[in-house]
Formats: sequence, C-alpha cells, structure tokens
Amino acid sequence: MKDIKVIAFDADDTLWVNEPYFQDTERKFCEMLEDFLPHHTVSQELFKTEMKNLSLYGYGVKGFILCMIETICRVTENTADIKIIEKTIALGQELLQKPIELLEGVEQVLAQLNGGYRLVMATKGDLLDQERKLLKSGLEKYFHHIEIMSDKNVPDYLKLLKRLDCKPEHFLMVGNSLKSDVLPILEIGAYAVHVPYHTTWMHEDVSHSIANQKFFEAKNILDILSFLR
Amino acid sequence: MKDIKVIAFDADDTLWVNEPYFQDTERKFCEMLEDFLPHHTVSQELFKTEMKNLSLYGYGVKGFILCMIETICRVTENTADIKIIEKTIALGQELLQKPIELLEGVEQVLAQLNGGYRLVMATKGDLLDQERKLLKSGLEKYFHHIEIMSDKNVPDYLKLLKRLDCKPEHFLMVGNSLKSDVLPILEIGAYAVHVPYHTTWMHEDVSHSIANQKFFEAKNILDILSFLR
Repeated sequence: MKDIKVIAFDADDTLWVNEPYFQDTERKFCEMLEDFLPHHTVSQELFKTEMKNLSLYGYGVKGFILCMIETICRVTENTADIKIIEKTIALGQELLQKPIELLEGVEQVLAQLNGGYRLVMATKGDLLDQERKLLKSGLEKYFHHIEIMSDKNVPDYLKLLKRLDCKPEHFLMVGNSLKSDVLPILEIGAYAVHVPYHTTWMHEDVSHSIANQKFFEAKNILDILSFLR
Repeated sequence: MKDIKVIAFDADDTLWVNEPYFQDTERKFCEMLEDFLPHHTVSQELFKTEMKNLSLYGYGVKGFILCMIETICRVTENTADIKIIEKTIALGQELLQKPIELLEGVEQVLAQLNGGYRLVMATKGDLLDQERKLLKSGLEKYFHHIEIMSDKNVPDYLKLLKRLDCKPEHFLMVGNSLKSDVLPILEIGAYAVHVPYHTTWMHEDVSHSIANQKFFEAKNILDILSFLR
C-alpha cells in the first residue's frame, strides 16, 4: 500500500453509528403494526417496499420514512388508523435528529493520517442529512473532500476518482460494507480495507469471501495504521 | 463580463420545467382534501409544513411528499381516510417520474458556450432525483462539473468556488431565482444573470429590486450570448 495518496472513508457505521438507529426505528415501527401482522412479517414487507422504491428514492432517511408509510397502507389494506402515519413521521424525524456517536479509534486514525494523505469522506444517503451528520461529528476538519453519492457502484467510483484526479492504484477505500466499499473498489483496481460493523443492513450483505491482493480485512479501524506502515 | 471563465446554471426552471409539475401535484393534493378545507387553505397549510421541515428535510420531492402527508394528518386532525395517504404517495412517485422538458434556447446556449467556458450545473434538491433529471435531459455532455447542493447561500457558493478553484470575478451564475441564484452570488462579488420563469415557488420570491453592476436581467436564456459578447 505504499503508493496510496488518497484515502476515502465511508461514513455510516464506519465513522459513526447508523444502522442500530435504523433498526431501533424499525423495531418501534413493527410494534405499532403488531395488531395486523407479526413483527418479522412487517419487517420483511418493509424491506420489500424499500427494494421496490430504491431506484426511485435512493438511499437515506427520507426514503425510509416514505417506505414505512407505504408499507402501513399496503399491509393493513388501508384499514389502519391514520394516527399510525403521524407516529411514523415522528419516528422518522427523530431518526433524522439522532446524536452522532463516533466509533472507537476513528478520530485517532483521521488525526494520524491527516497531512500524510488526502482524506475523503465518501458516503451514500440524503444530501442534507449526511452534511448535518458530518457537521455534528466534528470530523469535517480532517477531510480534503466530501462526496455524497447517490450510489457506490463502479461508475460512481470512477467519477469520484476523476473528480479527485487520482489513479486507482493511489486510492484506498475504507468501509464496513463489502458490497459498497470493497467489491466495486477492487473491480476498478484500487485498494480496499473492510472494517466490519456488528450490524449490517440486509441490502448490503455479501455472502462470498474475497481474495485479492489489494484487499485487507481489519478487526478495528486502527488496523489501517499498521496496514499503511 | 469579459473575465468570466466558469458559468454555472441552475437546473429546475432554468434548464427544464419543474415548478409547474409541483404546482400540478399540489392542485391534485388540495382537491383530495376539499371535504375538509378549501383549496387555498390546504395550500397555505402545506407551505407552513414545508417551512417547518425545511431545515430537517432540505429541498426536493421526497421532503415534499412527506410534507403533504404530515399536512393531511394535521388539517384533518387524523380523521381522513388512510386511502388519501396512499394516493398522496402515488402522486409523489408520479412527480418523481415526470418527463424532462427543456426550456427554449437552453440547448443552443449550452452548445455555443461549451468549449469557451467551463460549464457547471449547480442545483438544489434530492441527489438521485437531480442526477436522474440530468441524465434524462441529455445535457450532461455540456457540463464540466455537476454540483447538487443542499442549499444556495453564501457559504455554499464559497465552497463551490473553492472546489472549482475559481475566483468570484471569473464566475457567472445563471438562474431563475433571485433569492438562490442572484443575491448570494452578488454578495460574494461574482456575476449573476437572472432568467425569470413564469412560475416561482413562494419560498424563492424576492420583492425588492436589484441594482448592481454585476447583475444582468435576461428576458430569455439566449440573452446570455449577447451579454458575454
């Protein structure tokens, strides 16, 4: 990894807690619909709605709230009390205002790499929401460039590299999602460090194992410091 | 304007039709609630909800759909049939899939300026939605850089100029909103061309007149060509 010049970090569940907040919201959502369907079934139906609408809404909390509302209408066949809709909006607005909880080692890693590398934050989600989280996190000062992406596939990363004027062999991506932060990165010939998080959204799950000379599996984000040595 | 090197274009209602689609959706929305409140009152209540949530949701269609839904719950005091919610989601999804209708002269202006200037698209709204509209528009080939912004205030434009490595005196912004595309631009010492559109969202309205040497009022986007000569 001695040729690395730019290091990009995913944000949600790489720099700060995210998925547990979503899951907590989903749990409360399923409880509200207990009279209609078992928890697990509501959860499955919500995921179905999310997948159906992904190409229309993209990633982020606003789409998630809209999907919860659509799921209520569908699974209750429009028999639910409209009060549940109001409660769902409140749940969603709460989710948008969660505090930022940095993950262990994050600030130390950024502080140490800052100066030696161009650091980038590269994340999916709603534009304003991700900007707000970055501001709340206090991490903005470490980053040379912020990229909020509508998706993280090969063409999206190629655009990012072009924008950064960086070759794949000089680029390292760090993130918790094999699907979004590792596989497309290896495909374009760049380096990837996977820092697993205990909770992953079903949509980001990857079942097969990865063997690639440019792929590194970390136990903790602090491992990056020794990988780069 | 002989020092201009970068020309940035707003997108909605500058390059293509947007506000009339929103107004059409709003009209249908108000009709659905006619049994509860007069059209005009629903419209006012919806605007109130939008302003309340603007700092939380930002600009764009997803936030607009969420605001319509919240407005239903509030103005009907949760007495509406939940079917109205389902219809509102359908209206919103329709809005996300409207065709792109280029405004008159747009393609001609971009084609003529392309090469002589670095052209940028700088717009507010939902990330994925604006990317989709740009793709559908066929205009992507003219732009050197695309910036989808969470807001268009002075700090946002300063960030954009930094990113483009461009000084204010070399920057021209073209757009239909005095509030978003003209006033902050003049404040940072850059040039602005206002191309009015027949319909403007109330939130973007500016009542006072502007006198500034770097401000140009166009009748039609084609006027830019003669301003730059």
